[in-house]
Amino acid sequence: MDTPLLNERDIDFLLYELLDTESLLQRPRYREHSREIFNATLQSARTVAEKHFANHNAKGDANEPHFDGERVHLIPETKQAWDAFAEAGFLAAHCDEEEGGLQLPEVILRTALAYVSAANVASAAYPFLTIGAANLIRSFASDDLKARFLPPMLDGRFSGTMALTEPDQGSALGDLRTTATAAGDGSYRIRGQKMYISGGDHSLTDNIVHMVLARIEGAPAGVRGISLFLVPRNLVDDKGNVGERNDVQLAGLLHKMGYRNTTSTVLSFGEGDGAVGYLVGEPHRGLGYMFQMMNEARIGVGMGATVLGYQGYNHALEYARSRPQGRLPSSRDARSPQVPIIRHGDVRRMLLAQKAYVEGALALCLYASSLHEDQRTAPGAEGRSNAAQLLDLLTPVIKSWPSRYGVVANDIAIQVLGGAGYIREYPLEQLYRDNRLNPIHEGTEGIQGLDLLARKVPAEGLAGYQLLQGAIRQTVMEARDCSSLAGQAGALEKTLQQLDETTLKLMGQLQADPDRGLANATLYLDAFGRVVVAWIWLRQALAAERGLADADSDTERHFYRGKLQAARYFSEWELPQAGPQLTLLSEGNSTPYEMEDAWF
Amino acid sequence: MDTPLLNERDIDFLLYELLDTESLLQRPRYREHSREIFNATLQSARTVAEKHFANHNAKGDANEPHFDGERVHLIPETKQAWDAFAEAGFLAAHCDEEEGGLQLPEVILRTALAYVSAANVASAAYPFLTIGAANLIRSFASDDLKARFLPPMLDGRFSGTMALTEPDQGSALGDLRTTATAAGDGSYRIRGQKMYISGGDHSLTDNIVHMVLARIEGAPAGVRGISLFLVPRNLVDDKGNVGERNDVQLAGLLHKMGYRNTTSTVLSFGEGDGAVGYLVGEPHRGLGYMFQMMNEARIGVGMGATVLGYQGYNHALEYARSRPQGRLPSSRDARSPQVPIIRHGDVRRMLLAQKAYVEGALALCLYASSLHEDQRTAPGAEGRSNAAQLLDLLTPVIKSWPSRYGVVANDIAIQVLGGAGYIREYPLEQLYRDNRLNPIHEGTEGIQGLDLLARKVPAEGLAGYQLLQGAIRQTVMEARDCSSLAGQAGALEKTLQQLDETTLKLMGQLQADPDRGLANATLYLDAFGRVVVAWIWLRQALAAERGLADADSDTERHFYRGKLQAARYFSEWELPQAGPQLTLLSEGNSTPYEMEDAWF
Repeated sequence: MDTPLLNERDIDFLLYELLDTESLLQRPRYREHSREIFNATLQSARTVAEKHFANHNAKGDANEPHFDGERVHLIPETKQAWDAFAEAGFLAAHCDEEEGGLQLPEVILRTALAYVSAANVASAAYPFLTIGAANLIRSFASDDLKARFLPPMLDGRFSGTMALTEPDQGSALGDLRTTATAAGDGSYRIRGQKMYISGGDHSLTDNIVHMVLARIEGAPAGVRGISLFLVPRNLVDDKGNVGERNDVQLAGLLHKMGYRNTTSTVLSFGEGDGAVGYLVGEPHRGLGYMFQMMNEARIGVGMGATVLGYQGYNHALEYARSRPQGRLPSSRDARSPQVPIIRHGDVRRMLLAQKAYVEGALALCLYASSLHEDQRTAPGAEGRSNAAQLLDLLTPVIKSWPSRYGVVANDIAIQVLGGAGYIREYPLEQLYRDNRLNPIHEGTEGIQGLDLLARKVPAEGLAGYQLLQGAIRQTVMEARDCSSLAGQAGALEKTLQQLDETTLKLMGQLQADPDRGLANATLYLDAFGRVVVAWIWLRQALAAERGLADADSDTERHFYRGKLQAARYFSEWELPQAGPQLTLLSEGNSTPYEMEDAWF
Repeated sequence: MDTPLLNERDIDFLLYELLDTESLLQRPRYREHSREIFNATLQSARTVAEKHFANHNAKGDANEPHFDGERVHLIPETKQAWDAFAEAGFLAAHCDEEEGGLQLPEVILRTALAYVSAANVASAAYPFLTIGAANLIRSFASDDLKARFLPPMLDGRFSGTMALTEPDQGSALGDLRTTATAAGDGSYRIRGQKMYISGGDHSLTDNIVHMVLARIEGAPAGVRGISLFLVPRNLVDDKGNVGERNDVQLAGLLHKMGYRNTTSTVLSFGEGDGAVGYLVGEPHRGLGYMFQMMNEARIGVGMGATVLGYQGYNHALEYARSRPQGRLPSSRDARSPQVPIIRHGDVRRMLLAQKAYVEGALALCLYASSLHEDQRTAPGAEGRSNAAQLLDLLTPVIKSWPSRYGVVANDIAIQVLGGAGYIREYPLEQLYRDNRLNPIHEGTEGIQGLDLLARKVPAEGLAGYQLLQGAIRQTVMEARDCSSLAGQAGALEKTLQQLDETTLKLMGQLQADPDRGLANATLYLDAFGRVVVAWIWLRQALAAERGLADADSDTERHFYRGKLQAARYFSEWELPQAGPQLTLLSEGNSTPYEMEDAWF
């Protein structure tokens, strides 16, 4: 594999120059670690990714899982990748040492996993879902369930899924109809059908642990009557031995445009005597628990979308440097040699746009992981609570912005390659297809917009929102003192002000008429994301100015110049598009809202 | 097939209320026609499309052409579709009656073909390319070539291709290296390799007529040394009998993300004794001739992109009306029934955006066909020359705007369906993949931007550009008198003014520094297209206001209300995005231009 998965210099910059990851070493939990250990971990992940995941990315796409009536078959490389991932310890890397983990900080774990996603997002889904399911069990399940299910999930014998969606309910979780009946022995019998369950069946592991949302008989309607159950594909006895098949059947495989090597399944629970399920935590509080896994998955989707965009950018950059075609407009001599296409202004524009999207998105996702870390291990309660509030506010942005602009980056990468971009003999079109799932799964853009505007912004008297405003203003003040960044600081401040005024107006509208007030929530999400990423870019620019001052080689200077140019591009080309959006929002534009069904 | 291919009411509106298609009946060429004949022709096309093209759209995608070492195999439905199309007379419908044609006006022909593309854009490519190749022969070839090749191309025994691109040259046609050597008998021997040749091999017809660009030995370098040759796959004797295979070999099939049932080939000409080719027209003037077919193909790509977007919109609309999910934000009762998703504000926004894109694009494409008609049959030389200048100016917009926003429409349609949008069991993801080729083939967006800014706008002292400005101002004046449209008129006028100022600045920059002046040409193309489509929408709004005044049923009133709401949406949501774009252009923003290779 010649094209790099990501960019190690960029990751180094993000971890140690943008984010102060090294300061984690001062926290008691990470006292035994060092920057060398962090970097060795990343190297190890990169090696696993290159050797065991990248090798079958195209093959898994062309030979998707199939069901022979009894078993689901995956290409054998998938199992080798799963084993390599487990053997390298990444299923448990973030767990405590006493659990057999490495006590790795979240931001290092997620960076490590980013390499794996960049190599093969479809095969990466199996371990990633397993980590999320295991985390859910660790947080909320009884000691008995933990003892039976966690060890095999952390060492790779069992895998995990999240089973929320049903055929008739989609995003509206409150309407789910899967039922749970107490069996009298403490367990429940689960009955119902779940759809779009990734990793819902396969032959990678001895068992699959489904984390299932269901309604205990007699539970209240809506989201307050949902409970969480652990439903293994195969029953497990007290000693952890895998026994007979539970009443969980594969009703069908779905065939997706991307992520093809991740099975997407329809699962039937309890077509016979009922599937044995174990209640996790308290009854009727399941959705609250599941939000832990959903939020983790949402940040994971943002990261997956980011690195697919990043892979596309790396390919497009290589192609643009090596493909000679045409001459500059100023060249009149038809006999002069052709120039590499990177010398064409429009190609540089397309590459710079991709760089701005994918490096901006990666910075955003790693910042999210640092907040995730801080909410648990930051010194002082205020630091932890601030991090939690910021992460809560930003989760819909972290899920949706990289998803939308990751696809845009892949779209532009295809455009750089021209015809080669849409030919399956090149990797771009698969990246584009893979990435197109990300603005939908784990909550569509529309759902994220509602979440941001109706829940996250107003939460706790706009507390998280005010924290973010303060953090952005802080960066603006710093940047204003740096003459080369003063213009960008001013542009961000102006748009932030417009966002703030718009937000306060919308808060009023939400009270007066929630249907109308939320009608343009997706537009708000996009404008909000644009401001957040402009902020992240301004922070990168500040770090790059610091780096440039101390740089001692052309390579280093070029790297920082590239960061500064991308930040400038984002400020000049992307941020101003928030202007017309915020105007529409602030005026309460109702043209789409008032469109009637009969007029279509 | 339940989902309509297009929307007959919309087409009726565009042909007879927006464009004055009925006035064609007063032109001598169409004196024998009637509106009934036009409509019967469209019905006939719709029937062929529904019966013979839509039936294998998904099947052709899933079972793409393959080469067994001797022949290229297509699924048999492709041949049945070809035959049905030829039997219905559409290969020759626009030709003179004395040639065996129907003397159908261009705008009716293209509307008819739009149904076929909407049903199956991949299988439609074979007849569409044949029509273009036959038109090229009709315009420029000798009587002998016409006599031998046109009749079988018009009745469906032979098909045609355009063979321009080569592996090492891509968009830079001036660098093509295929050679032509005079054989002494009036024919030439062609040697070279051509790539991305759609329909370059298949088993639909007795013969394939390749229209090949090549360089006669000793010809000048660059675009001024290119000649056009007719190179049949099989030789044809004086009596029109198909003889032995010419020295044209299939070097390989390319596998695309979309349009899969259109073969995309690498062809080797003259690996043996040289492929027999016949010069079309004068030596070294081939590129000029080929532009006739390229322009026709570019408008065809715009239309193909439009109707793929339209199909997606029709599917999304049906889905949104029939899929219940969730409740409105104002509804607090978890036991109340779910609502169809069209009742959610964000879904209506997504549907209205699609409607604005696809109906705007269809109006643009049919307007283009009316210009194509007028340049040949308008009464008076000035009418013909004005139409020719406008069409010439607008061709890059007609190619690229529907291509870009057709993909956006399909992207939004996927979003409306959620998970079902990316599952291959539903038609959306294929439409999206098919459509993704359109911003590339027949000239990328970058190429269209350069064409617009460097050639089409400045052509003949900005003559076509001034004509367009005048036409838009005329519409603005009309709309200003209509109180409900005065706001839209003002918005368009303001942006038009900004575009005009920007254009004049750019004309100066082009002189001073062409590389820098053209660096943002793609952005100019997008802003220019936004203004043009806003104009087309304002014209539709004017026609809708007229229709609304006379409407005598709710159905009619709803139709016009929908047009008016979409026009308003475009004016309020889409047009203002040109503001920041024109600011960047007018300031001569050079951030991407100044990005250095080493900084990436």
